[in-house]
Amino acid sequence: MTNEIENNGSGEQLSNRGHSRRDVLRLGSFATLGAILGSGIMLGGATPAFAQKVDGTTKQLASEPLNIVFAVYNGGTLLDFAGPSEVFHRLPNTNVRYASLNGGTVTLEFGVKYGHTERLADIRETDLIMVPGGSDMTEAMHPEFLAQIRRLAESAKYITSVCTGSLSLAAAGVLKGKRSACHWAFVNNLAKYGAIPVTDRFVEDDNGRFMSGGGVTSGIDFALRVAGKLKGKQSAEFTQLVIEYDPAPPFHSGHPRSAPPEVLAMVEKVLPGATKGLAHIPGIK
Amino acid sequence: MTNEIENNGSGEQLSNRGHSRRDVLRLGSFATLGAILGSGIMLGGATPAFAQKVDGTTKQLASEPLNIVFAVYNGGTLLDFAGPSEVFHRLPNTNVRYASLNGGTVTLEFGVKYGHTERLADIRETDLIMVPGGSDMTEAMHPEFLAQIRRLAESAKYITSVCTGSLSLAAAGVLKGKRSACHWAFVNNLAKYGAIPVTDRFVEDDNGRFMSGGGVTSGIDFALRVAGKLKGKQSAEFTQLVIEYDPAPPFHSGHPRSAPPEVLAMVEKVLPGATKGLAHIPGIK
Repeated sequence: MTNEIENNGSGEQLSNRGHSRRDVLRLGSFATLGAILGSGIMLGGATPAFAQKVDGTTKQLASEPLNIVFAVYNGGTLLDFAGPSEVFHRLPNTNVRYASLNGGTVTLEFGVKYGHTERLADIRETDLIMVPGGSDMTEAMHPEFLAQIRRLAESAKYITSVCTGSLSLAAAGVLKGKRSACHWAFVNNLAKYGAIPVTDRFVEDDNGRFMSGGGVTSGIDFALRVAGKLKGKQSAEFTQLVIEYDPAPPFHSGHPRSAPPEVLAMVEKVLPGATKGLAHIPGIK
Repeated sequence: MTNEIENNGSGEQLSNRGHSRRDVLRLGSFATLGAILGSGIMLGGATPAFAQKVDGTTKQLASEPLNIVFAVYNGGTLLDFAGPSEVFHRLPNTNVRYASLNGGTVTLEFGVKYGHTERLADIRETDLIMVPGGSDMTEAMHPEFLAQIRRLAESAKYITSVCTGSLSLAAAGVLKGKRSACHWAFVNNLAKYGAIPVTDRFVEDDNGRFMSGGGVTSGIDFALRVAGKLKGKQSAEFTQLVIEYDPAPPFHSGHPRSAPPEVLAMVEKVLPGATKGLAHIPGIK
């Protein structure tokens, strides 16, 4: 699988990647760690340098980078991909990229500006595609965006999403008959597109070719599971320790099954249909 | 406390804020929720419209926005503030801003591009300042950055940090004799600046004027605690439910006390001193 970007004539992507590489070499500490681990040394030392079928999943060749593309868009939610991004960047031998329909800066939920992003059309293929969710899915449901993620998904080894990103993948037609997660308030909208809604925090199908996380923060758990499957348990544990993922929520309100009824009622009031997993998102009919 | 930005003559900040506001009105769903709650209606309806001393903390006036500034910098870590940002934006009646030494786009760890950010010097004051951590603290330890965060901290009601951001606040001289959290691998460096290192995930001092989170992902727990203190438990629970924060890490490796010894040894190898909380970060002598 290639790791090259098709030249769009701007030189922008190359300079972006070059900058990123220089950062890795310059920053030391975490980043030096990334550079060391990224040079093909597998954590744990037990993974031989050839494809290995473990737990139903073919692990990456130790000498080949795992190419990851986050397909982001205007109206998306930062934390949906900031969690996975933080995990994937720290794994050994990954190449993480951010791409959007038009490239450049995207304006996320709450006006947050993100990127430089590459253009989706300039990415020939990827090993793993991740589509995050958003509060306005207008661009994520645009036919050109759907065409691009369908194209990348068709040749990808792993098709993944967090939160309502699964609705975009489903609308693109790549989740037909597949089990998928989604934010709890929207999960049953998946059925409109022939996907099978599952209310778990992490869901997989087809021996891990399809992997998805629930709402927003579930992206961190999702990414650690993906890390364990594709880079080995010890790589995932190492990353978990570096990002100090030892969660201690001060309240018990992270899911409808545990939230106080009055808090759930407040969400239902502003997102009618949420308690049935059928709340409406702008951009989805 | 004012909510105005001093005019820097560029008009950039006004257009940025204007854009953000238009987004809130346009996006519907989560964002409409934000707009509704942002209009001064307190969740739960039980908070009267005047300052209220509860649990040792003065709650915000229902009719006054809580002004929050994230002081970000080149070399910072995205997830350190992406978690808190996601929580704070969703609370009723908050005004969340991002500022850096020079304004514009900042290049975070791994080459991630973030912003438009405002210039710290253009922010007159804020109710809450939050300094996130980073893998390269060179800019976060720059005398001008330290001067700006010291200036904002002096008039702020709440002085906060996540991860190694506390080292920057401590170097700025505002944490002398104060208990503070930090990433576990770096926490004891706080003592160099007269702060008191505490290895908890969330730490407060002076009845909540100082609040801090541990490493990277602890920002989510930190922000929910801050939310509960400043906006009431029900606002925090509501936000927790909307961001589906029902963590389920697949491994037990989020802190030195739970990580497998061989994984901890791997971190110590690339970050010498980590197990003593005295690892080195570029930019800090």
